[in-house]
Amino acid sequence: MAVRYELIKECSQTGARLGRLYTPHGVIDTPTFMPVGTQATVKAMSPAELKEIGAQIILSNTYHLYIRPGHKLVEQAGGLHGFMNWDRPILTDSGGFQVFSLNDLRKISEEGVEFKSHLDGSKHFFTPEYVMEIERALGADIIMAFDECTPYPCEHDYAKKSMERTIRWLKRCKESHHNTGKQALFGIVQGSTYKDLRIESARRTVEVELPGYAIGGLSVGEPKDLMNEVLDYTVPELPKDKPRYLMGVGSPDCLIDGSIRGIDMFDCVLPTRIARNGTVMTSKGKLVVRNAEFSEDFLPMDENCDCYACRNFSRAYIRHLIKAGEILGGRLTTIHNLRFLQNLMGQIREAIREDRLQSFRNEFFENYGY
Amino acid sequence: MAVRYELIKECSQTGARLGRLYTPHGVIDTPTFMPVGTQATVKAMSPAELKEIGAQIILSNTYHLYIRPGHKLVEQAGGLHGFMNWDRPILTDSGGFQVFSLNDLRKISEEGVEFKSHLDGSKHFFTPEYVMEIERALGADIIMAFDECTPYPCEHDYAKKSMERTIRWLKRCKESHHNTGKQALFGIVQGSTYKDLRIESARRTVEVELPGYAIGGLSVGEPKDLMNEVLDYTVPELPKDKPRYLMGVGSPDCLIDGSIRGIDMFDCVLPTRIARNGTVMTSKGKLVVRNAEFSEDFLPMDENCDCYACRNFSRAYIRHLIKAGEILGGRLTTIHNLRFLQNLMGQIREAIREDRLQSFRNEFFENYGY
Repeated sequence: MAVRYELIKECSQTGARLGRLYTPHGVIDTPTFMPVGTQATVKAMSPAELKEIGAQIILSNTYHLYIRPGHKLVEQAGGLHGFMNWDRPILTDSGGFQVFSLNDLRKISEEGVEFKSHLDGSKHFFTPEYVMEIERALGADIIMAFDECTPYPCEHDYAKKSMERTIRWLKRCKESHHNTGKQALFGIVQGSTYKDLRIESARRTVEVELPGYAIGGLSVGEPKDLMNEVLDYTVPELPKDKPRYLMGVGSPDCLIDGSIRGIDMFDCVLPTRIARNGTVMTSKGKLVVRNAEFSEDFLPMDENCDCYACRNFSRAYIRHLIKAGEILGGRLTTIHNLRFLQNLMGQIREAIREDRLQSFRNEFFENYGY
Repeated sequence: MAVRYELIKECSQTGARLGRLYTPHGVIDTPTFMPVGTQATVKAMSPAELKEIGAQIILSNTYHLYIRPGHKLVEQAGGLHGFMNWDRPILTDSGGFQVFSLNDLRKISEEGVEFKSHLDGSKHFFTPEYVMEIERALGADIIMAFDECTPYPCEHDYAKKSMERTIRWLKRCKESHHNTGKQALFGIVQGSTYKDLRIESARRTVEVELPGYAIGGLSVGEPKDLMNEVLDYTVPELPKDKPRYLMGVGSPDCLIDGSIRGIDMFDCVLPTRIARNGTVMTSKGKLVVRNAEFSEDFLPMDENCDCYACRNFSRAYIRHLIKAGEILGGRLTTIHNLRFLQNLMGQIREAIREDRLQSFRNEFFENYGY
């Protein structure tokens, strides 16, 4: 079954939309947040726990899996689904973001990017064609085109050249992507924070005709208002009948503000990363559960949460686990943060259904301490 | 309800016995293996997973909990059961073993042991009376008396003096233990590897009249044959109507050989520690799943195992997780090792019931590669 987006309803208060994304491994209610499983595992979580927190799709990273254990091994194991025993949808990024983050370790040309492995310094060369081959081997339901993610800030001149190359690479991706209907190729809109470039990138990306479109190059250090401004003029260039994915965004405020601007999909390592460091998201804002002030606090992390951690353990216990370096500490905070975001996305969808997402935003920001 | 042992049946082939240990938090089928939760958590496991692998009782360490988060905090949280949300039986050790392992950091007198915290070097003083107070605060179903665990090898002269002090400390423990019926105090037989001392220690410990007896000071570096020899002459000194606990033993061969000699309870960090390093116990012997030879091996860790890890994941995937430093790797190997030992103890109990434990031992040792 090919990947297909169904638009169910638009919010009358905002630009948000309620939808469903159909994939070979199941249906995803949108807007959705995708937990990140960089190395074929969402850090600290088992697949059973991911289902328990309600994850309908996860993301995995092509660069990391290519480096270790290698895409051919994953293919032998029956693709990522078989390898990690996750039978729901998966999206793989293209490795572009990671490769461009290597800084001194990479060299860009029209053909592709030469880079050195962060593990052993060995040399590798990613081209759009090779990335398609790797993503095919990994076997995700949705695969991302190979793009250049420009840093912030970025000169207009470089952003323009890079955006144009990303379009040329997208065409090469599409040509080499043997669409069997099992994998949907999404294109990525770039153009830094320049309106002219973003609009040109969006129009030319849409011309390639793909089952979905992402907005990349945001959440890379620019102020939040600027990100929202870019979304304000970029999203209207994207077709209504295709899913829209804002890459690398996962803070509660940005998930709400992105949804309001018509985004359907989000991903970010933030909730799992801060969890392992002892910070959790709650209905009343961030809580640094590892702080001394919680050492004798026997309340759950979030009294309004229904996750395994909040149903069973106190802040004092979780703080003890984290201070003592115990694995269960990071497990419980991770379960909570991911469940918190699943619940938040559910509330966003409910608010869209009831034409009150703007009101929900105002209320949430007040409680959340914004 | 007080702690009580019920002897169900003795094996006609060996000295093993099938029993039941009744405690305020539930019944334990013996012989049993107790997973170790040093810092109020069995490393990498959740309480739900501990139940899933079939753990009926866990052990926690008094020294560690006293140092962090402190026994008074645990008491405030409703004892260990409330603090870690484990509603089945718990046994706490006395801190003796840990304190005596501190070597340069401790000073022994008749009154007790002065030691420095391994965390911050702060000075502390454990007496039998104070240890009883700490264990009372922790609230375990079974609490161990404060003893000195002698190293191996140990001079006869020192072993004798130490064993006699341990007896005096046991009496002080019993006197200061306000037995409300909620906590059962077990005494510990010492005497190194000397027959005369072990027998004297056993007789004098039994004279104190307690609901259970442990054999300590073994599995501290002596050869396995010597441990079995000590059990051969020590166990017969212990009463049949009380449980017998061999401290610090958890390798499959020693669990079988200990059961054969009439031991009812065991504990050890071995299965969880080796798991996190990528070594698992299987029905065919040890398997170092982190080794390169398993990188493309898509079989489960143990084809005869029914644990979550073996039902769902391959050696290749688990090896990848461990090599990549992913938390799920150590979680899966830990689940497996603990389930493996629970299954082994179940097989031992079944063999006792059917009067064939010696035959089971021979078969197991052959398959296990001994």
